[in-house]
Amino acid sequence: MPKVVDHEARREELAAALWRVVVRDGIEAASIRRVAAEAGWSTGSLRHYFDSQTALLDFAMQLAVERVTARVGAVTGEGPPRAVAEALLHEVLPLDDDRRAEAQIWLAFTARSLVDPGLRELRERAHTGLRDLCRVAAQFAGAPPDDAERLHALVDGLALHAVLDPATTTPARIVELLARQLDAYTPPSR
Amino acid sequence: MPKVVDHEARREELAAALWRVVVRDGIEAASIRRVAAEAGWSTGSLRHYFDSQTALLDFAMQLAVERVTARVGAVTGEGPPRAVAEALLHEVLPLDDDRRAEAQIWLAFTARSLVDPGLRELRERAHTGLRDLCRVAAQFAGAPPDDAERLHALVDGLALHAVLDPATTTPARIVELLARQLDAYTPPSR
Repeated sequence: MPKVVDHEARREELAAALWRVVVRDGIEAASIRRVAAEAGWSTGSLRHYFDSQTALLDFAMQLAVERVTARVGAVTGEGPPRAVAEALLHEVLPLDDDRRAEAQIWLAFTARSLVDPGLRELRERAHTGLRDLCRVAAQFAGAPPDDAERLHALVDGLALHAVLDPATTTPARIVELLARQLDAYTPPSR
Repeated sequence: MPKVVDHEARREELAAALWRVVVRDGIEAASIRRVAAEAGWSTGSLRHYFDSQTALLDFAMQLAVERVTARVGAVTGEGPPRAVAEALLHEVLPLDDDRRAEAQIWLAFTARSLVDPGLRELRERAHTGLRDLCRVAAQFAGAPPDDAERLHALVDGLALHAVLDPATTTPARIVELLARQLDAYTPPSR
């Protein structure tokens, strides 16, 4: 099936180029022209895959969701429950360049989805997925079941602040503020 | 100074029309054409004030900041400190139609500011203003000083979720989740 292989290989190639642009220059720089240049493609060839800026952003969000899902799936549920809760939540918080790129994409995509109904389904899937992850983490952390929403709001608020004001909301600060929230449920030593 | 009076009166008139559109149909509906129709102006006349969709969004955000600032300023610091903290934070959370409009504008404006440097100054002012308000509220609530950031992240996270998923993150739920956060600092009776 050479055509399928081609398609997959090209998707990977575009994904890698798009990711390099977002990590290096931010989601705002990820135009069709720039991604084409990064991939070594013509703008016209890229337009064959993405006919608009929104389609490119949609692709970026799909990638971000795939990446987060793969990392969260790789977290083992073994060890102290509190550590498992932290490991899960750290995967969705902007603690390094890749996760910062994901948070930027998430914010840009979410805002665009409010005016573009075509993006709503993926936005809702991502929102529900994070909510479910927060429920699992809350359970590991020993939180009351109905407190997962508060954890979810904190996680999204921290991600937002990291994008808006990275000098204040640093990775170390995010880890600390999250730990403080989890301390309320379970002492760190458990 | 009839010219100044005219300008102020027109600004008020436009502000009222813009607000009605956002409250009724959402920020995504607040185009120059729609706001002009709502105000009973020609599109051309409105374009004299706002030469782009971004200029209109900038005006909406200025209005939202003015409205929040006025309401927060009207909260008296009297009564039980915990109640003061709640009164302050309720003013910035989407608990009714007007505050929901403000949250929608905030999210749309914030996302746009990431790609439009002209909006950055107002975004930073709004972000800093809310951070400072959370510091004051944290103090009233008896929170440790360095925990205001966590309160700030929770407030923004709840506002975001209310815009994205109003059926789940209802006003009553927001009030409850915020109260739970404040309970960690001061029992409700104090």
